Amino acid sequence: MKKVITFGEILLRLSTERHLRFSQATNFNATYGGGEFNVAVSLVNYGFNTEFVTRLPKNDIGDCALQEIRKYNVATTNIQFGGDRLGIYFLETGAGTRGSKVVYDRASSAIAEIETNTIDWEAVFKGADWFHWSGVTPAISSNAAAVCLEAVKAAHKMGITISSDLNYRSKLWKYGKEPKDIMPELLKYSNVILGDLDTAFFMTGQEKQDPDYQDMDSLPELYDLLYKNSPDLSYVATTLRYSVNASHQKIGGILYDGKKIHYAKIREVTPVVDRVGSGDAFMGGLIYGLLQDSIDNQHTIDFAAAACCIKHTITGDFNLASLEEVELLAGGESSGKVSR
Amino acid sequence: MKKVITFGEILLRLSTERHLRFSQATNFNATYGGGEFNVAVSLVNYGFNTEFVTRLPKNDIGDCALQEIRKYNVATTNIQFGGDRLGIYFLETGAGTRGSKVVYDRASSAIAEIETNTIDWEAVFKGADWFHWSGVTPAISSNAAAVCLEAVKAAHKMGITISSDLNYRSKLWKYGKEPKDIMPELLKYSNVILGDLDTAFFMTGQEKQDPDYQDMDSLPELYDLLYKNSPDLSYVATTLRYSVNASHQKIGGILYDGKKIHYAKIREVTPVVDRVGSGDAFMGGLIYGLLQDSIDNQHTIDFAAAACCIKHTITGDFNLASLEEVELLAGGESSGKVSR
Amino acid sequence: MKKVITFGEILLRLSTERHLRFSQATNFNATYGGGEFNVAVSLVNYGFNTEFVTRLPKNDIGDCALQEIRKYNVATTNIQFGGDRLGIYFLETGAGTRGSKVVYDRASSAIAEIETNTIDWEAVFKGADWFHWSGVTPAISSNAAAVCLEAVKAAHKMGITISSDLNYRSKLWKYGKEPKDIMPELLKYSNVILGDLDTAFFMTGQEKQDPDYQDMDSLPELYDLLYKNSPDLSYVATTLRYSVNASHQKIGGILYDGKKIHYAKIREVTPVVDRVGSGDAFMGGLIYGLLQDSIDNQHTIDFAAAACCIKHTITGDFNLASLEEVELLAGGESSGKVSR
Amino acid sequence: MKKVITFGEILLRLSTERHLRFSQATNFNATYGGGEFNVAVSLVNYGFNTEFVTRLPKNDIGDCALQEIRKYNVATTNIQFGGDRLGIYFLETGAGTRGSKVVYDRASSAIAEIETNTIDWEAVFKGADWFHWSGVTPAISSNAAAVCLEAVKAAHKMGITISSDLNYRSKLWKYGKEPKDIMPELLKYSNVILGDLDTAFFMTGQEKQDPDYQDMDSLPELYDLLYKNSPDLSYVATTLRYSVNASHQKIGGILYDGKKIHYAKIREVTPVVDRVGSGDAFMGGLIYGLLQDSIDNQHTIDFAAAACCIKHTITGDFNLASLEEVELLAGGESSGKVSR
Amino acid sequence: MKKVITFGEILLRLSTERHLRFSQATNFNATYGGGEFNVAVSLVNYGFNTEFVTRLPKNDIGDCALQEIRKYNVATTNIQFGGDRLGIYFLETGAGTRGSKVVYDRASSAIAEIETNTIDWEAVFKGADWFHWSGVTPAISSNAAAVCLEAVKAAHKMGITISSDLNYRSKLWKYGKEPKDIMPELLKYSNVILGDLDTAFFMTGQEKQDPDYQDMDSLPELYDLLYKNSPDLSYVATTLRYSVNASHQKIGGILYDGKKIHYAKIREVTPVVDRVGSGDAFMGGLIYGLLQDSIDNQHTIDFAAAACCIKHTITGDFNLASLEEVELLAGGESSGKVSR
Amino acid sequence: MKKVITFGEILLRLSTERHLRFSQATNFNATYGGGEFNVAVSLVNYGFNTEFVTRLPKNDIGDCALQEIRKYNVATTNIQFGGDRLGIYFLETGAGTRGSKVVYDRASSAIAEIETNTIDWEAVFKGADWFHWSGVTPAISSNAAAVCLEAVKAAHKMGITISSDLNYRSKLWKYGKEPKDIMPELLKYSNVILGDLDTAFFMTGQEKQDPDYQDMDSLPELYDLLYKNSPDLSYVATTLRYSVNASHQKIGGILYDGKKIHYAKIREVTPVVDRVGSGDAFMGGLIYGLLQDSIDNQHTIDFAAAACCIKHTITGDFNLASLEEVELLAGGESSGKVSR
Repeated sequence: MKKVITFGEILLRLSTERHLRFSQATNFNATYGGGEFNVAVSLVNYGFNTEFVTRLPKNDIGDCALQEIRKYNVATTNIQFGGDRLGIYFLETGAGTRGSKVVYDRASSAIAEIETNTIDWEAVFKGADWFHWSGVTPAISSNAAAVCLEAVKAAHKMGITISSDLNYRSKLWKYGKEPKDIMPELLKYSNVILGDLDTAFFMTGQEKQDPDYQDMDSLPELYDLLYKNSPDLSYVATTLRYSVNASHQKIGGILYDGKKIHYAKIREVTPVVDRVGSGDAFMGGLIYGLLQDSIDNQHTIDFAAAACCIKHTITGDFNLASLEEVELLAGGESSGKVSR
Repeated sequence: MKKVITFGEILLRLSTERHLRFSQATNFNATYGGGEFNVAVSLVNYGFNTEFVTRLPKNDIGDCALQEIRKYNVATTNIQFGGDRLGIYFLETGAGTRGSKVVYDRASSAIAEIETNTIDWEAVFKGADWFHWSGVTPAISSNAAAVCLEAVKAAHKMGITISSDLNYRSKLWKYGKEPKDIMPELLKYSNVILGDLDTAFFMTGQEKQDPDYQDMDSLPELYDLLYKNSPDLSYVATTLRYSVNASHQKIGGILYDGKKIHYAKIREVTPVVDRVGSGDAFMGGLIYGLLQDSIDNQHTIDFAAAACCIKHTITGDFNLASLEEVELLAGGESSGKVSR
Repeated sequence: MKKVITFGEILLRLSTERHLRFSQATNFNATYGGGEFNVAVSLVNYGFNTEFVTRLPKNDIGDCALQEIRKYNVATTNIQFGGDRLGIYFLETGAGTRGSKVVYDRASSAIAEIETNTIDWEAVFKGADWFHWSGVTPAISSNAAAVCLEAVKAAHKMGITISSDLNYRSKLWKYGKEPKDIMPELLKYSNVILGDLDTAFFMTGQEKQDPDYQDMDSLPELYDLLYKNSPDLSYVATTLRYSVNASHQKIGGILYDGKKIHYAKIREVTPVVDRVGSGDAFMGGLIYGLLQDSIDNQHTIDFAAAACCIKHTITGDFNLASLEEVELLAGGESSGKVSR
Repeated sequence: MKKVITFGEILLRLSTERHLRFSQATNFNATYGGGEFNVAVSLVNYGFNTEFVTRLPKNDIGDCALQEIRKYNVATTNIQFGGDRLGIYFLETGAGTRGSKVVYDRASSAIAEIETNTIDWEAVFKGADWFHWSGVTPAISSNAAAVCLEAVKAAHKMGITISSDLNYRSKLWKYGKEPKDIMPELLKYSNVILGDLDTAFFMTGQEKQDPDYQDMDSLPELYDLLYKNSPDLSYVATTLRYSVNASHQKIGGILYDGKKIHYAKIREVTPVVDRVGSGDAFMGGLIYGLLQDSIDNQHTIDFAAAACCIKHTITGDFNLASLEEVELLAGGESSGKVSR
Repeated sequence: MKKVITFGEILLRLSTERHLRFSQATNFNATYGGGEFNVAVSLVNYGFNTEFVTRLPKNDIGDCALQEIRKYNVATTNIQFGGDRLGIYFLETGAGTRGSKVVYDRASSAIAEIETNTIDWEAVFKGADWFHWSGVTPAISSNAAAVCLEAVKAAHKMGITISSDLNYRSKLWKYGKEPKDIMPELLKYSNVILGDLDTAFFMTGQEKQDPDYQDMDSLPELYDLLYKNSPDLSYVATTLRYSVNASHQKIGGILYDGKKIHYAKIREVTPVVDRVGSGDAFMGGLIYGLLQDSIDNQHTIDFAAAACCIKHTITGDFNLASLEEVELLAGGESSGKVSR
Repeated sequence: MKKVITFGEILLRLSTERHLRFSQATNFNATYGGGEFNVAVSLVNYGFNTEFVTRLPKNDIGDCALQEIRKYNVATTNIQFGGDRLGIYFLETGAGTRGSKVVYDRASSAIAEIETNTIDWEAVFKGADWFHWSGVTPAISSNAAAVCLEAVKAAHKMGITISSDLNYRSKLWKYGKEPKDIMPELLKYSNVILGDLDTAFFMTGQEKQDPDYQDMDSLPELYDLLYKNSPDLSYVATTLRYSVNASHQKIGGILYDGKKIHYAKIREVTPVVDRVGSGDAFMGGLIYGLLQDSIDNQHTIDFAAAACCIKHTITGDFNLASLEEVELLAGGESSGKVSR
């Protein structure tokens, strides 16, 4: 069984019920999630061996996060304990023309204050096949960025495949650095990058282009620009999202393998139960396809896009869909019949 | 007031809230339902006198089911008490491309172990006008099938109209018999059959055909095949369902009276709040129309299809819609305005 | 900061959860609302100084309503205390083809028994710029109608702009008077009227016309008829609603300024979370635009229609949307992206 | 099976959850209850045939009350439909030193406006053995008092045993009459009266006495005074309650048979889950004992007091305890062991 | 109407339901509270004019706190807006032998970063009669301590009565200062101090003594020591608490007026619904008594202790008891009867 | 770190909320538990390495149980998958004089149909120090009894300490065998037995005795009788329980080491939040003490009794108390103070 390591932050998510606005909430649903951990959960559901590396505070809220990681059968062997608090994000789930709203409350979280040279990356990566990280982690603090670089370098040195989700969040990156100061070095070791071209050019400090995702033939030229910064890059993927409204999305995807564009056709997603984590579901599907020798690139992008779609029907950060369920949808069966 | 008897199983239904997946559920909504009882509830709402015959365990869970039957004003006079457990089904309500999921837990239920010659069917049917049963009951156990046959024969002997819903569930029929071993004898006495043609041919052991529901003219010939097994058959009806996704259905219906196809036009049903029991709502509407002398066949099928549609907006197994509400929709008013 | 006064009833709203029908409810969500107060809440969110005048019983339920008014920062200075009970309305929220259902329980409420000459309207209107009332208040009782007339006359005398929402509810008007006995005198002082033409003609006792809202050119002639009864009238506005089903509306609006029709284009509203109070949200948007010198009539009607649309996504009577959120939608951005 | 009729009001009860104060409540638990109906539910649980006579409004809230009556297997044959609203009471459940709080909202309820000569009491009482009413009903309105008198006279004429629970509520009796104007005539026909002596003297207009319930020997003399007003009186019973705090009661009871005082020893009741309806539970136990020939007076009062105690552990108005459970406690087994 | 100002932090409180442990919680009840604000709410309930001064972040969570302040009718005129986050505390409510557990998450809260010279204390205190602060505020950060000192000095200069609740929390005071570095200067201006003697000596850097609260005669000598540091001190009060277990407390209190000990007798408090904020309820009662000329010292301490007791029966931080309810208990009526 | 293996059934537990009776429940809280697994959870909390061996059905409900096991960090390495259903038990939580009620629904569960020779016990016990089983498992079915015997024999052969909790449930043992047919052979290998003497004599087919737990000196003689059947027996322990009512228990314990009685003094436990699993909490405490060399027998029984007490304050089957919390109580600190 292939083994995948992910590294990043897991947060307490406090969301209002029944589309209530924050001012109406008298309680919050408490779940846990974070981009890189969400990817790990997807991969467990597809049958992989996974492990999540993070830093958790030694208090009851940190313990709850730890139990959630265990519940979903992700290994916790190299989790570091310390720091004062678990990061939090508040979520108000929108509907129709009213978008969802996130209030971040992740200042001074345990992982923001992680120190370099405190995680034994060689031990972490022993026996692993793949390492995944995302642009959210270096956006938290310079400490987190530095440890992320440690991880990427160690993984690269040990010959492990590295996937990077650009994951740009403008509300983060508040510690005096811009993405272009940090991300190029981190992305240098990537074998797989997920992100749209605008973000990729912005983060790697390249000139703004004007990609036209409707014109597939024009895309290879632009994607090729990314290979300059990342010499080991094999694949670039982009989620295609068209938002009709908060309850209705259209989702497709692109996988470029350095030669050819593979395209997952746009699928209607309505109603949207919860779209948070749908990019991570896409990423999970991508890794699944790329890790399975028997799966070709076209099926990989179909699977990734299907995983992204089905995530929208599931509450919480995780894509709690089985391999069979995603394959069914990737194969075109979207009628949502009752299974009985 | 006309009187209708139904016979079958009532189950405890444990459903997750808010579209949660089973693995996310920390509680279950507890309601009660079962195909034949669901039909009885519909008919009470339309003003009929109804009675439900079943077997319930003498424990607190069985008592809850009994109270639910009483609450909806269905007579309980001939319910038999005994056995160990009430059957259960777990329901995870899907959304969009993710279908709902049912986990049956009905092994060894009270009705599965019902004995022949323990219900006085002559007393049950005294004063009754109609008897309804469905293919779920003989699918549970050979005992349940045998008692169902008792009922059908008694009703037939007493000149009561018999309606049969084929209701095929592949996850049942686990006791060593196939539908074609059991159903032909049971269906022999039917005056009204609800089901699609494929299921009807399969259950009566006839050759597979290829019905084209778009081509109305081709259908009488196929429906006529069913009259061979059921000499007293007057009507065959079929629910037409097209599933766009779990939250969006298109619903119509067909009523064949041995001469002519009556067709209820396809109606959009979105969002779907709960589709379980929508076939029973259709059946309830059908019986309503056929029992009322003043209602013609076209209106009967329009009413049945409207009842099926409106059920999709109601949580739980029951079509808790009033006669006026169904008539309003059957009459074409589907704008869902606020009544105030 | 401009100051707006509204006068009317605030009720306890008891609504079933999760689209349950009344017969399935074992608890009710308790919120508070009422047309005129709802308008005040909208206006606070847009930055105005607002005050709500009403009569509340001196019991715990009345106190809850008072706290709700305070919570939303609406002044309570001139609220009168007395009477036996707070009016109640029960709400069953529909879905798809099943419309929502309101059961009024507002007989003998505190405001129904309000006496004339008990509110010092001169004090109420001192420093105010705008007074809003609606046709629900005079529909409650002859006492409420008489006090409403006091208010309108006092406001008019003090030179305050008066807006009137016709708000016809056939289930009210049970005290022996018809709208045409009461409303013409009340509407005489209006500067702004919100309502559809049929209702306006009916309430002012004018002959029924046949307005065609698709034919914009034909409308001024009809709207002009309203100026006869209301000599100070400057604006008439109408919400345009097309109900596909209870979960899917199409919403636009018209603002006539005595010369020209301004038209807000129809917008799809789906899913509908809660449509109660959406007319009040429209009214709130209208007042906002008309009170701001910098806003032209076209933007006013666009803003009012956008406010109406966004209200449909919010649970409860209030349009808890910020100025920025409504402006975003009025400006055409309806994609409902996640704000993070 | 003996048959008992009760007559009175059933109300919608809206209670806050988890001991919340009204100002903290964002939802209410909705149940149904009322003194005389509560007695009927007790008696069904003890195996009697019961029927409840009342007046219900023809709206959804009235229908909910009707379903609740059916659920508990109380006959609804003679219920009258009409009027505008179902009476409501709001309940805030206290704890410790903070008492529970009731806000009545029962003005203009359906039964308050019931008319004389609209119920066929002869039909109601045919085949009945016992009629029970309470002092709450004549306290609602003069109409309700008049119909209550009709019922009592009819029952007396037909030789049916009549029990009366004095049930004094100072917040009712608002229609211009005092208990002593109404109750003596009503109580004249009683065979059994439940109430404390102070209330009995007050309601029958007799001079205030000073009963000492600790001094059992002194009581017969006082109880004998009640026989003057009620010539057919056989039994007087009193619930003994000592309230340590809202969560801790001490409960006993007295049954006087015209000759002898029978005394149920005081039992500790803590914690109190819900004390509303505990007097009705006592009454239900009393009727049970008096209707069973095989039960002597001592066991009757023991049973009634035990029923009252066990009610305190059950949420809602009803004493949902089985005959076995009450007998167990009446027999002295109060250890509350797990039954498994 | 007397006016009271309080200054401090208001936090989001996230508590588990139904005594669940943190690891079992899938949602949190969200309320708001903080020692000094809790006192303000008490005083509003007793009929005073109150205002709360604090610093709130300009985000949705800060807005929720603001609405809560408004809901309870506490003036918000001088609230400062700024900073990144609202402080949070997580609460697990214990039972019996398992104590409640608080996890603080208040690092970097808005008020921790408040700057001196940003609040116009002269404006704040204009027209005020009383200022209340507690030892929690200077424990948060040196900024908060410095602003607290500004407030105390300004109040003192303006001749306003100052009350100080020592409120020692060992988990705070993490910014490099100890109480004895900060508190003596702050307490210098106090007219009223609430706290136990051990804490008072510790915070003012005085030698540890061994107070015996059972020996009332020995206490004046010890209390007198506090007057050395606080020359304007008139009253010292102490809450007496004996904890049987988390659900059972015994509560009394002492008020020393420089001459005499006034003692509120110990009262049993069981069950405990929520003990957080009970010290603030005591403080609120104390201020009530001391601000009312008509109330003597003995009644003041009886009232304060009764307020503390009744708070234990109320969920959340606030003592939502009316003046009448507290007076009833202070007067000795603790039977918790149903009010109906 | 010492390793403990437990073997048995884990069930879905469906409990009513807020002390509701079954007939009032519209939803059930869903948790998981079972005697032997509960012991494992206790031991994880005390720092041991634990593993649970069971048989789970391959369906969604079985998967939920599996995730629960993982969440609490109990190893799942040797769990067997197969069978049709997860056993269920319904729980109605009592209060005061009304005891809790369990309805078992565990017929035909996965573990009831487990086959011998399908679990590799040698692999299971490799590296383990302790094996725990209870009398519930052989009570389920002859298959379960046979596999239990396999386990016991294998453990004994490998020199692993074996603890046995007698755990008699009269509602089980329905497959034609009595305890005395099965238990003596199983208990033969025990090193530690938990149970009361009556049950021990009954299960081992010995003559009934009359133990007097108040007379400690009389007990060794009786306990010694158990050593006859179990030659390797070192310890016998008994939980002492006195039930005042369902909300108030008194709990102590006895540990006999073949020479001496060690006695944990009786502790008041009130209120009782949930007593299910309290015997397992006792067992977990016992194993903890006996496995730690540094802990003497007196402290072992004190710790076990304290664990039992604290469990009563925790909802669900598990004793989610930390080592520190149990030690605090075992050491006599039971005041339940707030930790903050």
